[in-house]
Amino acid sequence: MIRHLEIVTSGQGLWELTEALKDCVGEAGVKEGLVTLFVQHTSASLVVQENADPSARRDLEEWLNRLVVEGDRIFTHTLEGPDDMPAHIKAALTATSLAIPVSGGRPMLGTWQGVFLWEHRKQGSVRKVAVHLSSD
Amino acid sequence: MIRHLEIVTSGQGLWELTEALKDCVGEAGVKEGLVTLFVQHTSASLVVQENADPSARRDLEEWLNRLVVEGDRIFTHTLEGPDDMPAHIKAALTATSLAIPVSGGRPMLGTWQGVFLWEHRKQGSVRKVAVHLSSD
Amino acid sequence: MIRHLEIVTSGQGLWELTEALKDCVGEAGVKEGLVTLFVQHTSASLVVQENADPSARRDLEEWLNRLVVEGDRIFTHTLEGPDDMPAHIKAALTATSLAIPVSGGRPMLGTWQGVFLWEHRKQGSVRKVAVHLSSD
Repeated sequence: MIRHLEIVTSGQGLWELTEALKDCVGEAGVKEGLVTLFVQHTSASLVVQENADPSARRDLEEWLNRLVVEGDRIFTHTLEGPDDMPAHIKAALTATSLAIPVSGGRPMLGTWQGVFLWEHRKQGSVRKVAVHLSSD
Repeated sequence: MIRHLEIVTSGQGLWELTEALKDCVGEAGVKEGLVTLFVQHTSASLVVQENADPSARRDLEEWLNRLVVEGDRIFTHTLEGPDDMPAHIKAALTATSLAIPVSGGRPMLGTWQGVFLWEHRKQGSVRKVAVHLSSD
Repeated sequence: MIRHLEIVTSGQGLWELTEALKDCVGEAGVKEGLVTLFVQHTSASLVVQENADPSARRDLEEWLNRLVVEGDRIFTHTLEGPDDMPAHIKAALTATSLAIPVSGGRPMLGTWQGVFLWEHRKQGSVRKVAVHLSSD
């Protein structure tokens, strides 16, 4: 079964989609199986991170922003703005697809795990995540 | 079908779970299909690496420890210890889920591939990996 | 259903397999379902990247080559050549498996997304990607 998630982002950062994902699994009626997410963009990605303390997400983003800097002199792909090439690199270093087993009608996330779309562009966008659900 | 793997780690590093995974596939009786692993933590991850020469795994770990350093001045998420925020970053840079086709009753790993849980915390822990198995 | 893709690489870089993947899905007759790719090597990986402007792929590769340098003094795994250990690290930082939902008989790639095998060794090789296909 295919479902579609849309995440409206207004800027760089981690946008949580855990609840939308749980709803998706619940509405599809999957009790045991597998849910697979695939982000349909090359300047956004998926990440599972701590859902409790926002400081962990802030530090994660700061750290990656320092690793992949705008205006790097080796960049030639600059027509779409200074944050475009860093966005592609950040997407390549994180996940485009993510598969989570489902049990008891819920994705089997650990206690502190949340699922996030990571927006790498400054302007934000409407981001599409294709979701595949299979029942055992 | 859902199975559970527990990997007891006593410190940072790559803990091989290839044999446990093969046993899991064998016991489930999957001849052809797909096995999906999902690590239920935000400070441990999954990696497929060379299973022959331990020096490759050592170098991989050393390299990542140098890239993501403890005590980085940009970190604000420090309450759980100096190795906690680096652990979250390392987990984000590697894999939370991993899907491997199964053929002939075995995960289709290449000759030199092993599957490892990468423990990023110094103290180690009991790490849970949810395993989903499907038969064609 | 299991299929096999072979990508002949003649050196480092991103080798597109989008068309081969579409053919694979089409020939298998999957209309709606999931396709999962798994690279059977530890010195090559998978990446979804912009398929339009080759400069994005060039910059991505240049950037990663600067991050993971040959001849790094911490490397001890050097018997197989100076590009071997960097190849393992690059593979660990990118994807070994990739799962893409299928709809209308095609992988649900976004408009600008292409799927690439990323060859990390200088000499190139014949790279094997195991492909699992499931129909809903």
